[in-house]
Amino acid sequence: MSDFAATRARFDIPEGVIYLNGNSLGPLPAGAEAKIGEFLREEWRGELIRAWNSKGWFTLANTLGDRIARLIGAPAGSVVVGETLSIRVFQALAAALQLRPDRKVILSDNGNFPSDLYVAQGLIRHLGRGHELRTPDPEAVEDAISDEVAVVMLTEVDYRSARMHDMRRIAGKAHAAGALVISDLAHSGGATAVDVTRDDVDFAVGCTYKYMNAGPGAPAFIYVPPRMAGLVEPILAGWHGHATPFSFDLDYVPAPGIGRMRVGTPPIAAFKLLDAALDAWEGVSMADVRAQSIALSELFIREVEARCPALTLASPREAARRGSHVSFAFAEGYALMQALIARGVFGDFRAPDIMRFGFAPLYVGEADVLNAVDIIEDVLTTGFWRDERFSKRALVT
Amino acid sequence: MSDFAATRARFDIPEGVIYLNGNSLGPLPAGAEAKIGEFLREEWRGELIRAWNSKGWFTLANTLGDRIARLIGAPAGSVVVGETLSIRVFQALAAALQLRPDRKVILSDNGNFPSDLYVAQGLIRHLGRGHELRTPDPEAVEDAISDEVAVVMLTEVDYRSARMHDMRRIAGKAHAAGALVISDLAHSGGATAVDVTRDDVDFAVGCTYKYMNAGPGAPAFIYVPPRMAGLVEPILAGWHGHATPFSFDLDYVPAPGIGRMRVGTPPIAAFKLLDAALDAWEGVSMADVRAQSIALSELFIREVEARCPALTLASPREAARRGSHVSFAFAEGYALMQALIARGVFGDFRAPDIMRFGFAPLYVGEADVLNAVDIIEDVLTTGFWRDERFSKRALVT
Repeated sequence: MSDFAATRARFDIPEGVIYLNGNSLGPLPAGAEAKIGEFLREEWRGELIRAWNSKGWFTLANTLGDRIARLIGAPAGSVVVGETLSIRVFQALAAALQLRPDRKVILSDNGNFPSDLYVAQGLIRHLGRGHELRTPDPEAVEDAISDEVAVVMLTEVDYRSARMHDMRRIAGKAHAAGALVISDLAHSGGATAVDVTRDDVDFAVGCTYKYMNAGPGAPAFIYVPPRMAGLVEPILAGWHGHATPFSFDLDYVPAPGIGRMRVGTPPIAAFKLLDAALDAWEGVSMADVRAQSIALSELFIREVEARCPALTLASPREAARRGSHVSFAFAEGYALMQALIARGVFGDFRAPDIMRFGFAPLYVGEADVLNAVDIIEDVLTTGFWRDERFSKRALVT
Repeated sequence: MSDFAATRARFDIPEGVIYLNGNSLGPLPAGAEAKIGEFLREEWRGELIRAWNSKGWFTLANTLGDRIARLIGAPAGSVVVGETLSIRVFQALAAALQLRPDRKVILSDNGNFPSDLYVAQGLIRHLGRGHELRTPDPEAVEDAISDEVAVVMLTEVDYRSARMHDMRRIAGKAHAAGALVISDLAHSGGATAVDVTRDDVDFAVGCTYKYMNAGPGAPAFIYVPPRMAGLVEPILAGWHGHATPFSFDLDYVPAPGIGRMRVGTPPIAAFKLLDAALDAWEGVSMADVRAQSIALSELFIREVEARCPALTLASPREAARRGSHVSFAFAEGYALMQALIARGVFGDFRAPDIMRFGFAPLYVGEADVLNAVDIIEDVLTTGFWRDERFSKRALVT
């Protein structure tokens, strides 16, 4: 059994903070500053340009990909890191359309994170071949799979409600219809017992700044199964994805496997933070994380429903259909969340009325959940949240 | 006059190193570790998710863009940072092709950095509309401009020889022929007196890890003149480029100006290093940088040619046609460069026989140039470079 009492010491969370916002931005890993300091002094300053070889900078995109692979059920050599999640979605989507040239439909859903839909819209406009983005309700996606569909592009866990798609079943239906599947793991990676091999998806992408705790805007990852990687013609053909980048050939020749999904010169400082963040996962089993996340979420739902009747559950009640955060609806949710943060309970808010609370077992325990509910109850019953300082909306919500 | 004796203290270069490799990777800015430490402790740890507002994370892509704008002759509000240079080339190229739908030729040259050509090849293949990438010799580019050309895509300063294109003249010819111009400033930004407004290019892109000293794989930038930005339909349509990202609309609406070139959640740690690196440019005029870079380069050429006859100048002799590095050809250049690095003189090597030495006035002075030539002469005359340890090629050259 993973020792979640021990993993808590792997994070540096301010005194008095109950951090239920790992679904948005994970907290600072305890080893991050030492790791980045070593990078700055020993590698960049000390080795200068030699560090691309001597410190392994050139291969970090792959070695860090392998560390993430373990967390999502992928084999070694099938994941690379770098770029941002929107770029990774774009790569996967363009590859899928290229592999299904006679089909014009991209099937997603209207609960998908909007940036994924924007990426599809930008690609469709530029391809100019009449592709169509369909966004039915999430519940209607499976029935919308047909032989018109080139690719089913879904975010497994809904960013607002935490509703989970059954990616294994969807991939089965999609493949039966001749379609490909892209799974966006933004709210799954490091949060649920993802198994891209079991689910048999054709592409998976995700970020590392949420449950993987690698910092704001940390690098994204992309998984392509070995059976697929050699078929992909990269739309983003960059020199780090070339078979022999330092031959400086004028013609692009893709690297043999997942390496072709690399693009430009990767961000080494960000990779070092990611490396420090992944240290927190040593000895941790994702099955245990999932079980503990469900236990904490169930406790939270039970206590909130018992003690805070003003809040309405906005996530699936069935744990198996829910990711690692729990959402409650409250008309004045923005102000209430600001008030909770002022009292040390960090969640976040998504318009129009969704309050999100994330449960990351690596640094959240049962006592945190109970303390958080005490504070929510107090802020509601005292009316503390009505203070006018909490109603003014910030740029980023 | 910029005080280059003072700017030297803004970098942390190891004792005994003469660093003539800023054309590949700039050295560590002295303020980098303090800045990143403050980011980790005060912003990420201390503010957590609030820092997107309270610490200005959300607007850094623009405010850092404005700091770079000053170095390349761009107006405020016309540059954003983030992503990698290959991604920026891709954005500019796709936008240009969209704006010239009836033309099929992308004109570049065979001296361009290969990744820029790879990006064009990947885009062409996926668009599938018969675009053609033409790569004549650099000297033949201007005559190859015709009314078939949609866009002229060039790297201003050749990564091997440092030969400079006259972008102002090229843009004039291109515009007269109805073509657009993309200028890749990888070896120009922070190195020469770039003036994208004077040159009247339609897009400029660049990296910040060379002469701007922001660290390995540091964020790229893109410039689109105000007259153009509103015309661009982004192919990489990400939520940070949306007019109202936090309304989470299902449809992409581009931000009004340069903001639409933003894509995914940007890398804040990397932005902080860039911010620290840009501090080194306070009070520095790019005209002075250019003048001093030329003075150092001319001194280097004169001394090497006088004292090291085995080396053959592989850069233009005329300073106005040369960027901020100087290349010499030597058949065993790889081994010689390894030997020089072992003796503290850092340059780099590009196949088949090019040794590059970069002159960045912020941290390289006349004494460094003279000391470097002393060492080159010594390594050549003693035959030190023939030691077999210098001949073994590393992965990254």
